[in-house]
Amino acid sequence: MEPYTTLISDDTICAISTPHGTGGIAVIRISGPDTIDIVSHVWHGKPLATATSHTAHLGNIIDGSGEVVDQAVATVFRGPHSFTGEDVVELSVHGSPYIQQRVLSILTQHGARIAEAGEFTRRAFSNGRIDLIQAEGIADVIASRTAASHRLAMSQMRGGFSSRIKLLHDRLLEMASLLELELDFSEEDVEFASRETLISLAEEILACVTKLADSFDKGRVIKEGIPVTITGETNAGKSTLLNSLLGEDKAIVSDIHGTTRDSIEDTVNIGGHLFRFIDTAGLRDTEDPIESIGISRAMDNIAKASIVIWMVDSTSTLSSAIASWSRIAPRLQDQTDLVIFINKSDINAEASGLQKELTDIIAPSSDVHWVIGSARSESDITTLQDTLSEIAAATASPEGEITVTNLRHYQSLTAASRAIRQAIRALRDNIPGDLVAQDIRETLYHLSTLTGTITTPDLLSNIFANFCIGK
Amino acid sequence: MEPYTTLISDDTICAISTPHGTGGIAVIRISGPDTIDIVSHVWHGKPLATATSHTAHLGNIIDGSGEVVDQAVATVFRGPHSFTGEDVVELSVHGSPYIQQRVLSILTQHGARIAEAGEFTRRAFSNGRIDLIQAEGIADVIASRTAASHRLAMSQMRGGFSSRIKLLHDRLLEMASLLELELDFSEEDVEFASRETLISLAEEILACVTKLADSFDKGRVIKEGIPVTITGETNAGKSTLLNSLLGEDKAIVSDIHGTTRDSIEDTVNIGGHLFRFIDTAGLRDTEDPIESIGISRAMDNIAKASIVIWMVDSTSTLSSAIASWSRIAPRLQDQTDLVIFINKSDINAEASGLQKELTDIIAPSSDVHWVIGSARSESDITTLQDTLSEIAAATASPEGEITVTNLRHYQSLTAASRAIRQAIRALRDNIPGDLVAQDIRETLYHLSTLTGTITTPDLLSNIFANFCIGK
Repeated sequence: MEPYTTLISDDTICAISTPHGTGGIAVIRISGPDTIDIVSHVWHGKPLATATSHTAHLGNIIDGSGEVVDQAVATVFRGPHSFTGEDVVELSVHGSPYIQQRVLSILTQHGARIAEAGEFTRRAFSNGRIDLIQAEGIADVIASRTAASHRLAMSQMRGGFSSRIKLLHDRLLEMASLLELELDFSEEDVEFASRETLISLAEEILACVTKLADSFDKGRVIKEGIPVTITGETNAGKSTLLNSLLGEDKAIVSDIHGTTRDSIEDTVNIGGHLFRFIDTAGLRDTEDPIESIGISRAMDNIAKASIVIWMVDSTSTLSSAIASWSRIAPRLQDQTDLVIFINKSDINAEASGLQKELTDIIAPSSDVHWVIGSARSESDITTLQDTLSEIAAATASPEGEITVTNLRHYQSLTAASRAIRQAIRALRDNIPGDLVAQDIRETLYHLSTLTGTITTPDLLSNIFANFCIGK
Repeated sequence: MEPYTTLISDDTICAISTPHGTGGIAVIRISGPDTIDIVSHVWHGKPLATATSHTAHLGNIIDGSGEVVDQAVATVFRGPHSFTGEDVVELSVHGSPYIQQRVLSILTQHGARIAEAGEFTRRAFSNGRIDLIQAEGIADVIASRTAASHRLAMSQMRGGFSSRIKLLHDRLLEMASLLELELDFSEEDVEFASRETLISLAEEILACVTKLADSFDKGRVIKEGIPVTITGETNAGKSTLLNSLLGEDKAIVSDIHGTTRDSIEDTVNIGGHLFRFIDTAGLRDTEDPIESIGISRAMDNIAKASIVIWMVDSTSTLSSAIASWSRIAPRLQDQTDLVIFINKSDINAEASGLQKELTDIIAPSSDVHWVIGSARSESDITTLQDTLSEIAAATASPEGEITVTNLRHYQSLTAASRAIRQAIRALRDNIPGDLVAQDIRETLYHLSTLTGTITTPDLLSNIFANFCIGK
């Protein structure tokens, strides 16, 4: 890959910025130093060269032979007051794929280059319009599918997380300066800041970094879905439940015990929360080697889940339910919410008796939620969905709290936390100031990679490759 | 359905105007008298109420609780200088389906109504910004898939066809006025225009209307694809050829004679021309009732085709090729172009001998194009594609000629042509002027329905129902 700096500013890029396909209109975005010049070549209408920034103009797009390709609206944004910081024109054309491709092709004939994925946002970053965390926030905003993930991404894009990091960065920088000042006067044995003050400042910063890093698990759940594992004996109706929750026939359902062997998963938005449901192999002793692997994966998925739905077949014996429970119980984590779904209650009048018996066995717990009904009944599925929504709402982040959703951010924060811990230890052990300063400089480095003040072309390429074309 | 007039101007509509799905950005369009007021309720940024027309502004979209839903650009177009003729705002938001739906929902909470399909264009028509032919042209522009169909639709949208109809309309109106003037002075037996002059004027108009109506077959071909029927004996390789042309396994291919029974069709863009290929049942005597129906359909498709590709199996006997030809020949129309594809030449060195023998039988004709090769060979398929492109290019409309592509237009033109013919007959038979004037008024009526000067709510609903939402 070419070095990063040659990618920017010296050429002009274009791309379709709206979703693919047919619609009423589509927007083609052009950005770079030759934007006005290139677009003027294909434009019949009010001259764009003299148009003021942030104005829209009706005109025709023409090809090399002078044939009108479309009537369009051109909106002019002059740098630096544009999204990328460069001169930008947005052409709003009719939403036919044919026209979109044709206009792109004419623009390239006049010297524009088709933009790479995320290249407009990359230019916005390079030109200092946004930092790296905000750029990543834009991708997350576009990808967000629920109110919760959208709220996190918006806060990130608008700079909430960035300004928290900036604050930590500034305080650390001050600390480093004080330590380095001491080094300059080292012969005179002055202390510009007491060791105690420095330690307490460093601990405050550590607490802040740790809190951000710790929010990652919750953040990932919001972004990727709350993991819900559906478990229980074979033929309890787990696949039927998954299909009812997804509203489609994803998992194969049959009366044959052991039908599901792979773990099947999919995400659904319920009440603004994203859930990732995992249907697992039924729990039983089996000779089938593939089924055995499936059961062992089911066990792992119980351990990893935030919520476990234990399906109990009410037409089956109490002893088989107890056997099932003895397999599940050791895998349940402390924070896991347990939902017990007593299934096939429509064909068994004594299902609520089973609830009482099971309650005695598993010991009453406020964390257990009960649903007694049928995986095929719409109203029982609604009850289950309401239960899941309540659990999700109870564990959601308070409004305004910053939650880390990005693995890269988590890794930088963890590295920063390691370095600042090292600094605290050094301060406590009265290690010389220059070594402490080095630890603090390392912490600063990790915080700078977060916002992109320090970065590498490879890192940037990786980040922007995940964007859609045209953004 | 509500009467048409209640649909317009008294309420404000909104819709996503860009294609469905995820992209960098999406555009939500709002139009109607309360546009500025409604958008101002969800807008944090420069006040839009004082913004001048055709200006773009950066701001935030907020929901009822004040939470920021997205950063957006709002472009203001003030009526009557907007697409619809009403106040219009286009909100350019991030292209997440979640955000798009959320913004729409917030706008409706403030009094906007979700637009029906084509309602923006319908308002443009109602407010006199465009006529009906142009409105239909917009839908065709969006739907067009080839250079040829796009060119026709663009010309229609930009008013080429409309102004031709307007010209005819004005001349007819003049004619009707002269005749009606005569009626006012009927007691005095004056003739304001000689019968001869009127007849020659009417004939001129008839010629014009007829030419437009006659262009419909060609226009439909451009819009729906040039019909190409692939025929020949069983197992000649017709389905293999179809699959090669489509680049996918559409038709089932086997060595068993009579594999294809249904006529299978699909369209492909070759060299800017849209072709509609029809693979048909192989021609042979059969006892199979389903295959018999298939063969009879194959015969119909030969008669309806603009181009017939006759597949000849070069490994088969000459007499079977002759038998095939005796079935095909009677169905070929005068204007049909014939392509003879001598297939399986890769496994038969004497394929070109077959060409000579067949030429003698079918009598040399300049309309016959030969391809000798294999339906599985990429280069032979390219040869065939070039041949088809040349045929299409030779029959294409000259640049600038108006071609009718719309069934509604064709029907109005045919009705107008019937009425003007009636008028000419009446003029020739010296029928009283008031009856002639009536025929001319009827012609005028049909031309007015074309441009939409005269229209009905049902007709409009039908037309705009074919639009996409947001246009």
